[in-house]
Amino acid sequence: MAAKARKITTVEKKLIGVADIVIDAAQRRRDPTFAIPVRSLSNVTFDEKKGLIELGRRKQARSFFNVGMAKKFMQTVLVADALCELQRANLTTSLREIYYRSKHTIKNSHENTLDTQDESDPLIEDLEVTLAALREELHVRAENAGSVVGPLVLVDDGDTVDCARLGKGGYSVPSIVEPEYLDIRRCTADFVLLVEKGTQWNRLSEDKFWRTHNCVLLTGNGQPPRGVRRLARRLHDEKKLPVYVLVDNDPWGYYIYSVIKQGSINLAFESERMAIPKAKFMGLSSADPEAYELPRNVGIKLNDKDVARAKELLGYTWFQKKDWQTEIKRMLSSGLKYELDALANKDFQYLTKKYLPHKLKEKDWLD
Amino acid sequence: MAAKARKITTVEKKLIGVADIVIDAAQRRRDPTFAIPVRSLSNVTFDEKKGLIELGRRKQARSFFNVGMAKKFMQTVLVADALCELQRANLTTSLREIYYRSKHTIKNSHENTLDTQDESDPLIEDLEVTLAALREELHVRAENAGSVVGPLVLVDDGDTVDCARLGKGGYSVPSIVEPEYLDIRRCTADFVLLVEKGTQWNRLSEDKFWRTHNCVLLTGNGQPPRGVRRLARRLHDEKKLPVYVLVDNDPWGYYIYSVIKQGSINLAFESERMAIPKAKFMGLSSADPEAYELPRNVGIKLNDKDVARAKELLGYTWFQKKDWQTEIKRMLSSGLKYELDALANKDFQYLTKKYLPHKLKEKDWLD
Repeated sequence: MAAKARKITTVEKKLIGVADIVIDAAQRRRDPTFAIPVRSLSNVTFDEKKGLIELGRRKQARSFFNVGMAKKFMQTVLVADALCELQRANLTTSLREIYYRSKHTIKNSHENTLDTQDESDPLIEDLEVTLAALREELHVRAENAGSVVGPLVLVDDGDTVDCARLGKGGYSVPSIVEPEYLDIRRCTADFVLLVEKGTQWNRLSEDKFWRTHNCVLLTGNGQPPRGVRRLARRLHDEKKLPVYVLVDNDPWGYYIYSVIKQGSINLAFESERMAIPKAKFMGLSSADPEAYELPRNVGIKLNDKDVARAKELLGYTWFQKKDWQTEIKRMLSSGLKYELDALANKDFQYLTKKYLPHKLKEKDWLD
Repeated sequence: MAAKARKITTVEKKLIGVADIVIDAAQRRRDPTFAIPVRSLSNVTFDEKKGLIELGRRKQARSFFNVGMAKKFMQTVLVADALCELQRANLTTSLREIYYRSKHTIKNSHENTLDTQDESDPLIEDLEVTLAALREELHVRAENAGSVVGPLVLVDDGDTVDCARLGKGGYSVPSIVEPEYLDIRRCTADFVLLVEKGTQWNRLSEDKFWRTHNCVLLTGNGQPPRGVRRLARRLHDEKKLPVYVLVDNDPWGYYIYSVIKQGSINLAFESERMAIPKAKFMGLSSADPEAYELPRNVGIKLNDKDVARAKELLGYTWFQKKDWQTEIKRMLSSGLKYELDALANKDFQYLTKKYLPHKLKEKDWLD
């Protein structure tokens, strides 16, 4: 045990508050009850002004003396206790390990506190939203799942990491990039380029695109994980950098962009600290195949699922801007989607040497 | 264009050789033919002495003047040409981009050279094995998909990367770690710990296990990708480091270990430079739940697929050692599998503070 007095974190205080509710109610012989914000679609709105998908104000009571809620109440307290342990020991862990840590057979019974992880995961989300603490602040991490290179100096665990001096491989973006863990010491880039797929990130890293165009190159190898989104958001907020998003031209690519920009419906309560409403869509646009003369045979036929998804996107409030309606409808009427990889049909370095420089020069992006 | 004379690589010479076969045959008015090693199970053997799954010597002819083979022959030449372009320009790319690069509509026809990537991928494997060049030497990469920390200094693209000074996040392992791209400048570790899942790697990285136990911590976030396997192999060969593998206790974990150790049937031709026959299985062993007093309720019931797969493994030549038969049969008779995450049931740091130190001290591993 450390001898020096430990400072109790704000989050720890909030978690202790969960126990206090129980103790307090017991002393007053009342039914202990939490008020948990409702996380269903009906309680989600899009704030046009802020450009964010947000959670509304509706709350739900979860009380102990209610046959239908008692077990869930007990589980919530157990999970809060495990999260509190993380704060006290200053450790991070995964959703899965919290499940295992909180799993016990209840004394004198054959019943487990939790049977599957499906029971503990939503409770962690409940606590996130009730306590207004990001998952990362609760010390819950996912896997490292992204890479970054560029003129960016970070301090991670006391080590100064210069992302301009890590070769082609770059720095492996941790799952938790909160200021408590990762300090953005310096960044002299002009913008952040957030690339959907690792293969284009590798192309750009290999070609030192970040040096010729003075940017931070970021990827999450697919749908960007929370750590990558938070890092982009922090660079946007703290270093005032514009964020450009580069995805495949398909409904999935549009969706990835929209989650980066205004958050997602499922995790609406996090938009305020995860979303980047000013992010721009750099491409691939459905106008690009013609503009950059990609042959039709490198396009891929839209399947029924693509068409249905694109039509759904057309209906979303945040895709109502005229340019976006044109963008999506043009894809639908062409009947084709295009991957960024298809640019290689012209030349292996077409992305680095022609496509992106032209897009940047012409400010050819969508908002 | 660079003014200085370009050195032609060995691999480029081999690829030019493919074209030479065609030219040579044309000049002699013969049928151009390649002899391609057969990559089916029937041509795969396990070399007990070397501890490697290897490709046999059977070859198959692919010739141009054969109706059934003409298209495939043409495609092989096209793909070889794209690979040659990569060598000349000293670029790397993905399987997918090679497909796009080689895709054209044949003049005066509606026929494409390639219709899907399923056609080009096997041709790249054909060329790998025919030319005895690893995919990485052909400059074909996958995504960065792993992390490393520890007392290891690498040189990547002229940058010196000290993996002991990259915080908790570590260095993002590139897909290609051949000496041409990545130099292992220094490594003072005593061993390599190759961890299946990112979550345990994060635990160990956070706890600075690599410092207290002087090791290189490596993960591929699941089945380790080629870059991670090659890096472990190079550390084993060049720095004479033992490699310990840490996986879940399930048939999938056993299989991951076996691929690291003796290679895989599908990619038998690569074992010689990818496999690590002296790798040891550190855990989770089916003996561990009892030895480390894990409660039965954190075990997961084996499903039918698990049981079938375990029985299959029992039959593999490389699992015939007595200890391995005991290991697998014990899992089967318990009816349970255990994830490494389950160790968190004892304590969030049980892996770092108890389990691994004990395993290492007792040399409690399987060969």
